[in-house]
Amino acid sequence: MASTLRAHGTLRAHGTAPSGYMAAAAKVGAKCGLAAFTVLLKISPEGGAKVAMTSKNILYAQSGGVTAVINASACGIIETARRHPAIGRVYAARNGIVGALREDLIDTGLEPAGAIAKLRHTPAGAFGSCRYKLRSLSESRAEYERLIDLFKAHNIGYFLYNGGGDSADTCLKVSELSATLGYPVQAIHVPKTIDNDLPLTDNCPGFGSVAKYVAISTREASLDVASMCESSTKVFILETMGRHAGWIAAASGLAAEHEDDAPHVILFPEIAFDRDRFLNKVESSVQQNGYCVVVASEGTRHGDGTFLSDAGSRDAFGHAQLGGVAPALAELIKTQLGHKHHWAVADYLQRSARHISSGTDVEQAYAVGAAAVEMALAGKNAVMASIERVAQQPYEWRVGEADLKLVANVEKTMPRDYISPDGFGITGAAREYLTPLIAGEDYPPYRNGMPEYERLRNVAVPRRLKQDFRV
Amino acid sequence: MASTLRAHGTLRAHGTAPSGYMAAAAKVGAKCGLAAFTVLLKISPEGGAKVAMTSKNILYAQSGGVTAVINASACGIIETARRHPAIGRVYAARNGIVGALREDLIDTGLEPAGAIAKLRHTPAGAFGSCRYKLRSLSESRAEYERLIDLFKAHNIGYFLYNGGGDSADTCLKVSELSATLGYPVQAIHVPKTIDNDLPLTDNCPGFGSVAKYVAISTREASLDVASMCESSTKVFILETMGRHAGWIAAASGLAAEHEDDAPHVILFPEIAFDRDRFLNKVESSVQQNGYCVVVASEGTRHGDGTFLSDAGSRDAFGHAQLGGVAPALAELIKTQLGHKHHWAVADYLQRSARHISSGTDVEQAYAVGAAAVEMALAGKNAVMASIERVAQQPYEWRVGEADLKLVANVEKTMPRDYISPDGFGITGAAREYLTPLIAGEDYPPYRNGMPEYERLRNVAVPRRLKQDFRV
Repeated sequence: MASTLRAHGTLRAHGTAPSGYMAAAAKVGAKCGLAAFTVLLKISPEGGAKVAMTSKNILYAQSGGVTAVINASACGIIETARRHPAIGRVYAARNGIVGALREDLIDTGLEPAGAIAKLRHTPAGAFGSCRYKLRSLSESRAEYERLIDLFKAHNIGYFLYNGGGDSADTCLKVSELSATLGYPVQAIHVPKTIDNDLPLTDNCPGFGSVAKYVAISTREASLDVASMCESSTKVFILETMGRHAGWIAAASGLAAEHEDDAPHVILFPEIAFDRDRFLNKVESSVQQNGYCVVVASEGTRHGDGTFLSDAGSRDAFGHAQLGGVAPALAELIKTQLGHKHHWAVADYLQRSARHISSGTDVEQAYAVGAAAVEMALAGKNAVMASIERVAQQPYEWRVGEADLKLVANVEKTMPRDYISPDGFGITGAAREYLTPLIAGEDYPPYRNGMPEYERLRNVAVPRRLKQDFRV
Repeated sequence: MASTLRAHGTLRAHGTAPSGYMAAAAKVGAKCGLAAFTVLLKISPEGGAKVAMTSKNILYAQSGGVTAVINASACGIIETARRHPAIGRVYAARNGIVGALREDLIDTGLEPAGAIAKLRHTPAGAFGSCRYKLRSLSESRAEYERLIDLFKAHNIGYFLYNGGGDSADTCLKVSELSATLGYPVQAIHVPKTIDNDLPLTDNCPGFGSVAKYVAISTREASLDVASMCESSTKVFILETMGRHAGWIAAASGLAAEHEDDAPHVILFPEIAFDRDRFLNKVESSVQQNGYCVVVASEGTRHGDGTFLSDAGSRDAFGHAQLGGVAPALAELIKTQLGHKHHWAVADYLQRSARHISSGTDVEQAYAVGAAAVEMALAGKNAVMASIERVAQQPYEWRVGEADLKLVANVEKTMPRDYISPDGFGITGAAREYLTPLIAGEDYPPYRNGMPEYERLRNVAVPRRLKQDFRV
């Protein structure tokens, strides 16, 4: 469709482009019934100009569980795209890929620069997210054809998908549309998951902030318990997220500075739960320290693979929906050891806690977004912007590039040598890995004692497709 | 006993005292088998000096559930006492009043000024706290006699008790020792409770910080839920502390900026839970906004006064130990409405969250501590340092003085006009009251991504009593 477009309205230059190109935006859109686009004018040495190419738009979507910094990636994408004349508009799918299938797009170009800048410090998904995994082409050809119709109608050349492992799989399937259905689109994956379980990246944006939250909360609550254990609560249990990988629970280990500091017991999904060993460990900690702090991953499971607390329902990806490990453990401690206990379940509080985000995490989230745009412009497809650890002390990192085929559907769990031999703590190697990820405090601005989080207008792009599509 | 003390060792001046007094500390102690003391030398106009009076020591104790800022009060007490030559040492009872009965005292004078200064940003109880309420003199005369023995042995003239309503009752009983058992001691109550339920004070130190935590957490988690409600979680429930008063749950209302903003339902202990009205309210919020955020006080109760979730055990004060309102409500929503839900129980995380303490709260906690020392020096007894709201806009406050008899055992619950007519939200009056209490961010210092909280050495004062005392 791009080749059939002709400029309407007034051509206006915006910004200076590198390498002899000057950008001119054709201000068209809703009124003309045409997709927004930008044409690039090649300035010849003689001063003449001619249309060199027609720019494509980006379709950006947030996917899966949101984080404290996924909007920082969105900010990186949009701000970078705005600086590149070769890119037209950035459209965001409302509520993730579901919005794309429904042709429910948001024109981020209608948001002022100040509003986009504030996304950097705004948690959760500014455009909405969803849990929806595209099935294979053979199983669900209609969905892929619908996406191609959408891409054509809105001049989409770049699909930037911001999510975790399941989303990487969806992004990979879209990246294959050129080969499978003949539509030229470049799909770039922008990593995001608090679970830190994506392979081929040192760590995942979103994780550093939840790790910082959990480490700080563990230290704070432990001071509380230590203050009162002599006559009150002896065992405190904090349940963290982390369905199959123990990274989040592991981060609680950073709360400890000295031997015998809390947490005294960390329960990882990677280590089969052994009731007697657990109870012995808790009791010995109470005897030795006067109290015991337990941090339990929601994915803590028995030797047979069943979760300690399976709520019985499943999410859209077919995963068991968990919850309630902490009260289950509390009940066990009460009946078997008789200690007074308290328990906390941080749930969404941990992944939305932008008020205490890691500075490293915010920077990396922004950087992978910005890099994804550069990769798109460099003609890349089926890749993920990754984080590479360049140096440990002082910590240095850079954005790398990973083959999406090797990312999708692979879960990176905790290496065994990050977990102490008894299975209840983290090792020095884990501490070395985790520490730089929680470094730095990137505080949001406040007004009247509350953080000022941005709410975009999220104006819809006029629909161009005649057919509705049921998701 | 003070009158029988004679100076041993070398007299050394420390600091300059106001109003013509010069302080001189007699460096005695463990080796001499005498309590530490300070003598004041009156400098006459002629330059002569004579002993004018013998200074008394302070016994300070933390009581009940600890908070993010109770150590700021300790900091205010110790720093102020150190500036006053008329006060000897500040001893802290280890683990609250229990430590006093056991003669387990900490000599805060052995901590360097830098360590004491860091208490201002260190959460929980630096000297340990307890839940222990002295019974009446007729019921438990031995405890009071023990305290008097302790006071005599350690030259205690001032008892500064840092706690909530139950602790105010203990403090009041100690204040009556002069009259009942003839020992001259001044007891000053330093208010502390996240529950904000003390009378005769505009608000209670500790509350502002938990209020800020709950308001921010509600706003953040609500953005998370709003991001994903289209295809995922529709109802989110946050359980807060607050056994009999709904102040903490009420603070979540500050998360809302606009009509229809979360939280959509707040459950207060002050309003009887009505299952059908609750379910209707949740369902209508889901229909109207796409999601519903519920903030439930742990003290939410049925019309007959029974708690929605009573864990069945009781604490040392005889209060029911609560927990699990959130999962109980989640189960109700799941079975009756069928919505996908998530729930969080912040538990100790909320009251220890020094990383996001309210600036107002930290200042007030420090100020009531400092004022209590001034009150002691002014000869006061059986009073509580209170917070008085002087002006609303801009907010101004000062420390006042309340009669402890009118404070002890009185619970200040939410006024009905702070709760919206339907019982599920807060009014403008409540918002006006709450807003200044969460104002300001008083961040602790960080190292390696973690807050630097102080751990005192807590060196024990040598024991002087021959008898042990079983608590």
